[in-house]
Amino acid sequence: MLDERVTVHVQTGRNGYDVRVGAGGIDELTVLLPRLAPAHRYVVIADDRVASIHGEYLLGVLARTNRKVDLLTFPSGETYKSRETWSDLSDRMTSSGVGRDAAVLAFGGGVAGDLGGFVAATYMRGLPVVQVPTTLLAMIDSSVGGKTGVDTPAGKNLIGAFLQPRLVVADTNLLRTLPAAELRAGLAEAIKHGAIADAAYFDWISDSVEAILACERAAVARLVARSVEIKADVVGKDETESGPRKMLNFGHTIGHAVESLSEFRLLHGEAIAIGMVLEARLGERLGVTEPGTTERLAEVFSRVGLPTELAEDLPHHGILEATRSDKKARQGKVEYSLIERIGRASPASGTWALPVEDALVLAALEVHPAR
Amino acid sequence: MLDERVTVHVQTGRNGYDVRVGAGGIDELTVLLPRLAPAHRYVVIADDRVASIHGEYLLGVLARTNRKVDLLTFPSGETYKSRETWSDLSDRMTSSGVGRDAAVLAFGGGVAGDLGGFVAATYMRGLPVVQVPTTLLAMIDSSVGGKTGVDTPAGKNLIGAFLQPRLVVADTNLLRTLPAAELRAGLAEAIKHGAIADAAYFDWISDSVEAILACERAAVARLVARSVEIKADVVGKDETESGPRKMLNFGHTIGHAVESLSEFRLLHGEAIAIGMVLEARLGERLGVTEPGTTERLAEVFSRVGLPTELAEDLPHHGILEATRSDKKARQGKVEYSLIERIGRASPASGTWALPVEDALVLAALEVHPAR
Repeated sequence: MLDERVTVHVQTGRNGYDVRVGAGGIDELTVLLPRLAPAHRYVVIADDRVASIHGEYLLGVLARTNRKVDLLTFPSGETYKSRETWSDLSDRMTSSGVGRDAAVLAFGGGVAGDLGGFVAATYMRGLPVVQVPTTLLAMIDSSVGGKTGVDTPAGKNLIGAFLQPRLVVADTNLLRTLPAAELRAGLAEAIKHGAIADAAYFDWISDSVEAILACERAAVARLVARSVEIKADVVGKDETESGPRKMLNFGHTIGHAVESLSEFRLLHGEAIAIGMVLEARLGERLGVTEPGTTERLAEVFSRVGLPTELAEDLPHHGILEATRSDKKARQGKVEYSLIERIGRASPASGTWALPVEDALVLAALEVHPAR
Repeated sequence: MLDERVTVHVQTGRNGYDVRVGAGGIDELTVLLPRLAPAHRYVVIADDRVASIHGEYLLGVLARTNRKVDLLTFPSGETYKSRETWSDLSDRMTSSGVGRDAAVLAFGGGVAGDLGGFVAATYMRGLPVVQVPTTLLAMIDSSVGGKTGVDTPAGKNLIGAFLQPRLVVADTNLLRTLPAAELRAGLAEAIKHGAIADAAYFDWISDSVEAILACERAAVARLVARSVEIKADVVGKDETESGPRKMLNFGHTIGHAVESLSEFRLLHGEAIAIGMVLEARLGERLGVTEPGTTERLAEVFSRVGLPTELAEDLPHHGILEATRSDKKARQGKVEYSLIERIGRASPASGTWALPVEDALVLAALEVHPAR
């Protein structure tokens, strides 16, 4: 059904960029970089784990551009998506003489993409960035749309900038070395894409969980391409998240709070799987979401092997408080981007996000065994 | 010749913004803010010195918008234009619950403008910013054009972002409380505007030094308005400094190095006055700049009371090295944006900046007593 490699175009403002999806895409960088992100020097930013697995291969490809190439690494893990790491990477670039004629390649999962993107966005007031995601989550979500940033002690992504990449290369070959847990977690975002925008895609994922988790080439290519299309479509309509883009936040208000309270023991995808189930439940109670939607979501997450309820040992009382520090809080009220049914986000009268009273959120949280 | 208040429009991409120049402009914020930077909350960022002189007045004006207003201050001085101050301001905003529905007012000189602008550019991936400059330098230079950022130990403005303000209000009444040294230093940039783009303006400044330094209303209004026009014109042609905008860097390659080596004992305007004289001398030696230009620049700077030569105690040998960490270094060669004559920048074959050999720069530096 799909060719080996697919290009999805993301339209943003006057410009746009391509996302190349398919097996072996990294090899194309030799040709694509000089054309789409010409520079005299390329700085690859990756965590040490990705660098040790794929660094040598990428550097070999980049060597063929005949440009100076630097590989800057940072320790693996969400806790390093910080201002300190950002500061350190920037200083290492300054001291090795990286100038404005350089471009950054953010190579890795969501952390490398957000962090590398933010380094690029702020180094000498902005270098071009190319996103080369290595995880499913990064391929279908964080690498597309131009969000970059770091966490602070007060919350996730509180500091950042919008910087649309010049190019995204999603080489699905890289998924074969991805830990199974990360593949599962990435699927949560793909399921979200189906849930907010494409019921047929939701059903297809539901039917193809095994093929996807087995990394079957065609299944994975179709998954990444369709998710990128959905994300590109939404982002193209609303580059800086003033309206419809908010639909991508389905599951994320509670999801971010859960992720943060778990102190990042939960993967992002695991946290937002829980978030989607709870927000669907909230939506059903509010009369926004079609009855039965929560069940369908929980069912597919279970099949993937993702959690659907809050863990017993999580401080539930802290969740409401954690949602408040979220960027989605507005005028003191926390906002939720809900769905009407599988395949359709709730426009919420054009705002694409609904402020919800605390009491209702608490009720949705407390359906499982009380404590 | 000029009305009391003048509006200069700055065109950037699809959008643009107004710079309101004139006495009493701050009072207009009550009307202009809700229209041009609507927000539910305004965060004023100012250094403690400006806050103590003008803070109360500004807060009184802002109170009439019926919005929540916060005043966040930081210690006065260029050394506080740092990632640490930026981080601290951002954290204070987070902890007081500032959300995405807020806007920032950067209130003060260049440091407050750059720092406040960078906080705005990166807080939750970007809040709108309004620039309310209080120094001559900030009114005619840093508040217009969207450059924001902080210094790092390796150099000035190495970290930053482009964020065009929604509005700039240059209230020339504020200049009356400005220390004389800062007024003189600000004039250096105005003279630069004449030198790169408008010989008649250069001559007018030269003839009006006394009236300007005495803060005569008409003279100051004309000065600010014409300089903003020139800057707006250049910036409008080249928002992100890929070409003609570089002409604004005349005097700045050496100027930044001198400023940095002086450990900021020299004001920015003082340093770039020296930079312009030395770069004019360099230009004359290269055959780019009309003979006699250096003299004319030195003459007007002397009349203003600005330095025109390197101080004896400055480590001259360090200047070349300091220029290298400048953002204007490209492929290892340091670039200079020179002028052909008073009133005309050198296009340098369309690049607006010329890479110059070290030996020639050294020769230009060493005309004064050798050591």
